[in-house]
Amino acid sequence: MKGQKRIRDYGIRIGSMETGRLNSITDVQGVHVGHCTLQGDDINTGVTAIKPHQGNLFREKVTAASYVINGFGKTMGTIQLEELGTIEAPIVLTNTLSVGTAHQAVVRYMLQQNEDIGDTTGTVNPIVCECNDGYLNDIRGLHVKDEHVLQALEAAGEEFLEGAVGAGTGMTCYGLKGGIGTASRRILLGTEAYTIGVLVLSNFGRKNDLTIDGFKAGQLIYRLDKEKELSSDKGSVIIVLGADIPMTHRQLKRVCKRTAAGLSRTGTHFGNGSGDIVIGFTTANKVKHYEAESFIGIRALNEKRIDEVFRAAIECTEEAVLNSLICADTTKGRSGHVIHSLKEYISEIALNK
Amino acid sequence: MKGQKRIRDYGIRIGSMETGRLNSITDVQGVHVGHCTLQGDDINTGVTAIKPHQGNLFREKVTAASYVINGFGKTMGTIQLEELGTIEAPIVLTNTLSVGTAHQAVVRYMLQQNEDIGDTTGTVNPIVCECNDGYLNDIRGLHVKDEHVLQALEAAGEEFLEGAVGAGTGMTCYGLKGGIGTASRRILLGTEAYTIGVLVLSNFGRKNDLTIDGFKAGQLIYRLDKEKELSSDKGSVIIVLGADIPMTHRQLKRVCKRTAAGLSRTGTHFGNGSGDIVIGFTTANKVKHYEAESFIGIRALNEKRIDEVFRAAIECTEEAVLNSLICADTTKGRSGHVIHSLKEYISEIALNK
Amino acid sequence: MKGQKRIRDYGIRIGSMETGRLNSITDVQGVHVGHCTLQGDDINTGVTAIKPHQGNLFREKVTAASYVINGFGKTMGTIQLEELGTIEAPIVLTNTLSVGTAHQAVVRYMLQQNEDIGDTTGTVNPIVCECNDGYLNDIRGLHVKDEHVLQALEAAGEEFLEGAVGAGTGMTCYGLKGGIGTASRRILLGTEAYTIGVLVLSNFGRKNDLTIDGFKAGQLIYRLDKEKELSSDKGSVIIVLGADIPMTHRQLKRVCKRTAAGLSRTGTHFGNGSGDIVIGFTTANKVKHYEAESFIGIRALNEKRIDEVFRAAIECTEEAVLNSLICADTTKGRSGHVIHSLKEYISEIALNK
Amino acid sequence: MKGQKRIRDYGIRIGSMETGRLNSITDVQGVHVGHCTLQGDDINTGVTAIKPHQGNLFREKVTAASYVINGFGKTMGTIQLEELGTIEAPIVLTNTLSVGTAHQAVVRYMLQQNEDIGDTTGTVNPIVCECNDGYLNDIRGLHVKDEHVLQALEAAGEEFLEGAVGAGTGMTCYGLKGGIGTASRRILLGTEAYTIGVLVLSNFGRKNDLTIDGFKAGQLIYRLDKEKELSSDKGSVIIVLGADIPMTHRQLKRVCKRTAAGLSRTGTHFGNGSGDIVIGFTTANKVKHYEAESFIGIRALNEKRIDEVFRAAIECTEEAVLNSLICADTTKGRSGHVIHSLKEYISEIALNK
Repeated sequence: MKGQKRIRDYGIRIGSMETGRLNSITDVQGVHVGHCTLQGDDINTGVTAIKPHQGNLFREKVTAASYVINGFGKTMGTIQLEELGTIEAPIVLTNTLSVGTAHQAVVRYMLQQNEDIGDTTGTVNPIVCECNDGYLNDIRGLHVKDEHVLQALEAAGEEFLEGAVGAGTGMTCYGLKGGIGTASRRILLGTEAYTIGVLVLSNFGRKNDLTIDGFKAGQLIYRLDKEKELSSDKGSVIIVLGADIPMTHRQLKRVCKRTAAGLSRTGTHFGNGSGDIVIGFTTANKVKHYEAESFIGIRALNEKRIDEVFRAAIECTEEAVLNSLICADTTKGRSGHVIHSLKEYISEIALNK
Repeated sequence: MKGQKRIRDYGIRIGSMETGRLNSITDVQGVHVGHCTLQGDDINTGVTAIKPHQGNLFREKVTAASYVINGFGKTMGTIQLEELGTIEAPIVLTNTLSVGTAHQAVVRYMLQQNEDIGDTTGTVNPIVCECNDGYLNDIRGLHVKDEHVLQALEAAGEEFLEGAVGAGTGMTCYGLKGGIGTASRRILLGTEAYTIGVLVLSNFGRKNDLTIDGFKAGQLIYRLDKEKELSSDKGSVIIVLGADIPMTHRQLKRVCKRTAAGLSRTGTHFGNGSGDIVIGFTTANKVKHYEAESFIGIRALNEKRIDEVFRAAIECTEEAVLNSLICADTTKGRSGHVIHSLKEYISEIALNK
Repeated sequence: MKGQKRIRDYGIRIGSMETGRLNSITDVQGVHVGHCTLQGDDINTGVTAIKPHQGNLFREKVTAASYVINGFGKTMGTIQLEELGTIEAPIVLTNTLSVGTAHQAVVRYMLQQNEDIGDTTGTVNPIVCECNDGYLNDIRGLHVKDEHVLQALEAAGEEFLEGAVGAGTGMTCYGLKGGIGTASRRILLGTEAYTIGVLVLSNFGRKNDLTIDGFKAGQLIYRLDKEKELSSDKGSVIIVLGADIPMTHRQLKRVCKRTAAGLSRTGTHFGNGSGDIVIGFTTANKVKHYEAESFIGIRALNEKRIDEVFRAAIECTEEAVLNSLICADTTKGRSGHVIHSLKEYISEIALNK
Repeated sequence: MKGQKRIRDYGIRIGSMETGRLNSITDVQGVHVGHCTLQGDDINTGVTAIKPHQGNLFREKVTAASYVINGFGKTMGTIQLEELGTIEAPIVLTNTLSVGTAHQAVVRYMLQQNEDIGDTTGTVNPIVCECNDGYLNDIRGLHVKDEHVLQALEAAGEEFLEGAVGAGTGMTCYGLKGGIGTASRRILLGTEAYTIGVLVLSNFGRKNDLTIDGFKAGQLIYRLDKEKELSSDKGSVIIVLGADIPMTHRQLKRVCKRTAAGLSRTGTHFGNGSGDIVIGFTTANKVKHYEAESFIGIRALNEKRIDEVFRAAIECTEEAVLNSLICADTTKGRSGHVIHSLKEYISEIALNK
């Protein structure tokens, strides 16, 4: 976004469904995304924050679900998310060794906004996700601080950059520069249109496995490449899925699970060393912290209509990964490591596809 | 029921909550239970059927959940139950080697009632649960036939026998005669009263572990006993939980999980060889097979009120196990094996408690 | 096999790894597969049996795991499989309404082979899996009988047919004739070569989603097709994965989970109405029923080497699905329904790919 | 320990198995426990650290498993623990809002000890568990700092205090002062003796539910009490289980699950608002970070012997909870809140039991 050339701008259209206005998770009404990028010398890291809505999230929780594709990861907050089926704090993404810091920052942010937490009511459950950017970033330096998390939260809006930005600054995907990518789809259910969007933090995959809309781009890149070294399939990917479709936790979890199919179409084998985690929410069916009634009315999807939602989740995920690659610039980082951008190969790929 | 002397009739009151009218799972409006008992020579087995409501269950499914306490068991149908959160056929209990037969019988029963199944619509998912009654029953003889399942289904009503009857005919629990037991509790949520009930098929536990309302009855029995042999903690227990409380699948699953606490208060260690499975449903929030709308309205419990439901599930389970014991008569079975009734010890227990 | 022309014979090579001798699950030493096919008038159904080894499986269980990709299915036996991590009876595949019959037949078969079951030792846990062949088969007729299961068990050997045979006789996959398919891969781990194989019962997918090695074959077929009707993504797929690689239950479960990536590369969205179940076993680390020792030595894979096993599982699954399609002949069945073979389109696909 | 009067010293013996030398988790060879206690004015909080062995835990990981009894909790690190079946960093317990801080401190501690982490090898997965001590502690003040975590780690040894100490300083259990408690059991498996131990951080339960060895102590306390207010069943409990028994991840997970039975015997209903999490490890079957071999030999328990391990886990858990209560002194904290010690009632209980 924000003037960046995305995968569709190269004539590559994933799937058949209509996109949202921005082709972004922020097409889901109320969802905002913000970054804080840290760069300099050996530092290539940052924070990305996703706010599910613009009200008080602790007081009006969103229905949520998570799914672990491969669990070699350190994401925090999913135990409670799964038990209660809600998210009550912004979702924050950062590097693996900074999740504790990010957690602490979200706690401070939530305490500031809610005087009741830890005083007259219970505590709060931050959702913090991560990938390991240690190849390009001095991850041992623990450069992410409280204020960077707050900056990402404050920067959150409808339009945001993709690629090597925020938590994606130092990430590597299919041996190329990865990072933040997003996409969305519109779905007609009954007489109304709904939106589903995905944001990925991409940091997984082996270079010669990269597949673009069925084309084995990675093998071409590998042949073009001078370096000829095979990366291994490790690193992780975080998938945040947002929707405005009325669903229960169980239904939403089924949708989250489908994102794995989108990932796998980009070529991955869900390597052992990868933490592949999905966090999903819907802005329908909000749950009040101070609910006075004994029972609450919610709306559930007629499960026979869920196939289109599955398809949309898969299309979004595949496209979001490709956007994360094509928007990311070649990056030089820690110890002189360089990771090249997909942009350097895209015209060759377009010729051969 | 039906004139049987139950654990409360011996002055033992489990917990503090009010019971339903019959203190039975059938206190949940519409739930019926029926038995078919097979006895003679080496045969001590049977079938118990639970119908969640009296309409067409395939066309009006009940919201459901399951929970595996210990999975050394052969219960059928839980994969789909968990994926879709519904039950669409009566729940049938029988012996371990007859689950296939019972499954086939339920299929026939459902095909007869629904001409669309397997023709113009999909198939059907029977729920068949089991315990191993091989100590008292010639289980290798495969004596349960299609017609016995149908007889149990046809016999289903509000009042039913407990103890050594139906699927419970040959079961052994804490080294004593076990089988079918039930109990229920009433809960006030908001301004309305709701009912939760549990039916157990008890076939687990080691004799000297039996605990009755905190009293180590098993150790007393063990001392009184001439035989002095220690049974091992294997066999299995099936717990069927019914309610009329509006809940989602996720909430109901949490309630199902609590029944383990009720079981453990009767003294069990959830032995390796035991298949301890919980099947739960609520008659609120029915799901139509031919739903025309894209979205359906359902009611969910305000989760802050769920503690009373947890407590009720635990009380019901503990009491249902004790009812299964105290209602069961001493039984002689395969190869002359004899399993004694708790009744033989209950006055001694009452004196010492 | 047995002279059938498979997907490789059309020049389509899935992945980069070496296949086993037969490119079949039976390349895993000791694994045998047998079919019983029922065909005539409205009948198109059958049974396929997989034996993990040729000894007494109850006395020497194989280490096993399962994974539910989508749970709209009626597979039996996975609760115990997951709790104990073993399989102790042949795996049997058939149609959805015949799983009870198949279960009963396997019980009889196991009782006959093991006089101790249900007498001096516990019971047995059959693994029965299914797909719904109701479009081509009179599934309401319940045509599968005990003897058909036994015939499949007796027919089991190293070489077996693929396509519209055994349990695959009436199955439909991507709107084309599906059924049984298999593939295998060889892996060098340390100094030794190991084998992993997959057998699928394919009955899933929407016609225009079919993807063959990245090529959107389904869209081509859809354009070529006169009928132009869109099938929906329901039906199910069963994936049986066998290996001779020393792994624990946990490791094997991780491998089972990867087969979903292989499936998704053939184009599926894991539709709501599909029961997509994986059953995996390894012939290494057998578990004795009458183990005398308190502890047993087993061998586990160094988890850093598991990526190659993941890759092999994915390649096998993708190729097995394609083999199930290309080996299946056009089939006419119930009510005159006809499902065409991929063979009718393959030359056109080869031209356009 | 360290001269504290424990529940056995009041004549209350839980279960029938033999305890270890110290009746502590540290009876498992190599396990050390340390506290850092923060107290003053409104502050009642702290940190407790458990080291599974005294070597380099990152280089020699322990086989591990976790189990969520009720997931209203914020424990970190279980996603990877479950995927890989190992623990590679000390387990740290603290208050709910300080888990981020504790995570960061463990990261620093591990980076200092391992120069390869985040440089030439991957990252590290801290296990941080929590309960909410907000009733007695100014939890909003975020008083736990990095150095307190390091102090707890440095203080770790075989003998340690129980009750209102370390992470237990501000915890409340059954309306009484709770905190840290421990217990152990010895088991003969084959010809050798093994040890299993449990450490709890207790912060759950409603006052009148407390059950001590079957006796409804809570009801007595409630009658004796002047205040007569009913606490609700929220707060959480963390259960850390250590053993030296050769087991696989799957077996250990089964053992972890049994601790719920021990908990439930103390009277809890696993309330909605409670995060009840179990972390288990065995010092047998260590996993090397730099394993050179493709396969590793491990020892597994003959599953038929696992019942005694289940029983031990249950006995340890029940006794550890009681030790956490009886060792804790009456504590005055935030806003003048006072929580009384079980000691004030124990003689009355002993008289009535």
